[in-house]
Amino acid sequence: MSLPPPVPAAAPPSPSADPVRARAALLDPGRLKDEVEEVLNAFLAGKAALPADGLPNLVGPLQDFLAAGGKRIRPVLAMVGWHAAGAAGSAATARHVAASLELFHAFALIHDDVMDRSATRRGRPTVHRIQEAEFERLPCAGPAFTTAGSAAERFGRAAAVLIGDLALVWSDELLHAGRPTQEQLARVLPLLDTMRTELTQGQYLDLAHTGRPSGDLESALTVIRYKTAKYTVERPLHLGAALSGADPELLEALSAYAIPLGEAFQLRDDLLGVFGDPQATGKPALDDLREGKATVLVALTLQRADRDRADRLRLLLGCGTLTQSQAQEARRIITATGARDTVDHMITQRHQQALSVLDGTPIPPAVADILRRLADRAVRRRA
Amino acid sequence: MSLPPPVPAAAPPSPSADPVRARAALLDPGRLKDEVEEVLNAFLAGKAALPADGLPNLVGPLQDFLAAGGKRIRPVLAMVGWHAAGAAGSAATARHVAASLELFHAFALIHDDVMDRSATRRGRPTVHRIQEAEFERLPCAGPAFTTAGSAAERFGRAAAVLIGDLALVWSDELLHAGRPTQEQLARVLPLLDTMRTELTQGQYLDLAHTGRPSGDLESALTVIRYKTAKYTVERPLHLGAALSGADPELLEALSAYAIPLGEAFQLRDDLLGVFGDPQATGKPALDDLREGKATVLVALTLQRADRDRADRLRLLLGCGTLTQSQAQEARRIITATGARDTVDHMITQRHQQALSVLDGTPIPPAVADILRRLADRAVRRRA
Repeated sequence: MSLPPPVPAAAPPSPSADPVRARAALLDPGRLKDEVEEVLNAFLAGKAALPADGLPNLVGPLQDFLAAGGKRIRPVLAMVGWHAAGAAGSAATARHVAASLELFHAFALIHDDVMDRSATRRGRPTVHRIQEAEFERLPCAGPAFTTAGSAAERFGRAAAVLIGDLALVWSDELLHAGRPTQEQLARVLPLLDTMRTELTQGQYLDLAHTGRPSGDLESALTVIRYKTAKYTVERPLHLGAALSGADPELLEALSAYAIPLGEAFQLRDDLLGVFGDPQATGKPALDDLREGKATVLVALTLQRADRDRADRLRLLLGCGTLTQSQAQEARRIITATGARDTVDHMITQRHQQALSVLDGTPIPPAVADILRRLADRAVRRRA
Repeated sequence: MSLPPPVPAAAPPSPSADPVRARAALLDPGRLKDEVEEVLNAFLAGKAALPADGLPNLVGPLQDFLAAGGKRIRPVLAMVGWHAAGAAGSAATARHVAASLELFHAFALIHDDVMDRSATRRGRPTVHRIQEAEFERLPCAGPAFTTAGSAAERFGRAAAVLIGDLALVWSDELLHAGRPTQEQLARVLPLLDTMRTELTQGQYLDLAHTGRPSGDLESALTVIRYKTAKYTVERPLHLGAALSGADPELLEALSAYAIPLGEAFQLRDDLLGVFGDPQATGKPALDDLREGKATVLVALTLQRADRDRADRLRLLLGCGTLTQSQAQEARRIITATGARDTVDHMITQRHQQALSVLDGTPIPPAVADILRRLADRAVRRRA
């Protein structure tokens, strides 16, 4: 989800300045992102500065991973949620909680890449591929090949699992470092627990369908609800809002915005994964097809295609050696069934639904403005 | 680490009974284990009872994993630590914190088995092997083979990574469910954060050396310090003690006991891994050798063996197809260098050191008694 361009507020906001402009500047997503980034970087720099005591340096790989990019959309939404509920309590605490979501997300992505065996992420080698190369630099040479790939490959994947674990563990530590009050913890921890469970279950469901997509639209929708709508949009907003003591009515309004928007965001992602420009998206145009991602787009296609085309598409999807021309063939089948148009229509519908929630809700107007801009960006993007 | 046999205290303790016997009964490790077990089972039963909402059931695999065995040594030590510091606050909270360590441990073991590609754990198939079989029961058949093992194998490993992640996430939730006070959280969370980081780093170090053992005794000792001495003994005791508001002096005394004992425990484990009776240990006698575990035992052997024998041992260790007679040969080399005797001696030394700490420390006598019995069991065992 891209962030809107910075609000052109030149001077830093002060209590004496125009309060509306000051509020807008505080809520500027670019600014929120920078604030969270600072907390994240300081935390990892602190880790890097600790004495090694014979232990390996695992901070470097995480710093590199985070430095490679990422839109920090979950932390930004957590900060927006915090402002939506009145920005009560310490801003530093809010930033720590928000930043912890990014470390948690690093965990999820690193493990995801291991599971998918992805070679690149954000235009760079994935953590397990970097660790694979690292293996060759270890002091003594081990057995070069085993029955399940090279020893270096095995090492890379195992190391990436551990580095992912560490990101998860540190996401907790970062949250604790923000010193939330007991009341804040009591409100935030159950949400965090739920979010993490939902993501893991969504990932498992995704895994169970990847490589063998079917016309099961319901499953595909469940995956995007849990993996994206809740995890990426609803829970971050809730976490920030809960930190500031949001009432149930506000949480409900945020959900009503978040779920359709999150679904629209993921549907756009799925379209970009198949039809997007690799130059803009930063990931190879064949990955989603080669992986056989069981998206709503594919489920719709398989439901609608005649038997021959459906069989052909099933054969192409998840084929690790899929060529450019085979990918073109898959795209033609998807487009011909009208599935592409339907998904586009679903995006528009959900986008509208999310926007309609923002009028006449307990969400403050300045926050609603930001949410509106974020929604526009989420669905109208090329990357 | 085995638990001592239950204290033969027939009646449940009551305040009116003999206070010394009542204290002893409260501290009985078998009883502590049962109490923690109950909390763990109730938590997972609660998870199992939740509506599925289209999501996969991942509670079953965790329940099966935990039901297959395990000595619950970390939760028991946490409870002993809590009693050592005066058992202040809610016993239910203490049991929840203690139980959360077992779920955390499940996470560590499940991921460890994926990384090592172990086929069995506690005499049953490992989680990734069970999930591999599960793959065949999924609704539609995917591609049977990929370049990196069968699709079922890949699925099994990825699913086990997720189930391990869930165990980690739920270990937090279980701790929160015990409703620790703000003061308790403030004392416990930093310890927990440290424990998790230490374990991950220790695992990474272990991974970097597995399959290519060397004479690097220092590294082998660092691994057992972090992976076992701290993670299995020191931190659980500290966590329980901190929950009850232990002062630094008590924490220090517990460390002085825990570190040598934990090292002795791991050294015994390493001996059992090579020379143990598979009937008693429940794991194949060849696993440690086949894996090429870089233990203190192996480091000592490589330091001492003449060049020919050292070369031969290096060839045998980590050989995935190691035969029984080759294993015998490896055992002969290890024994001939005197490394086996040295490790035995190191165990005795550390055991004595741990016991000596228990006299004249702030640890209450009844607790010291239990710690003495636990120490004896940890080093004199066949499994």
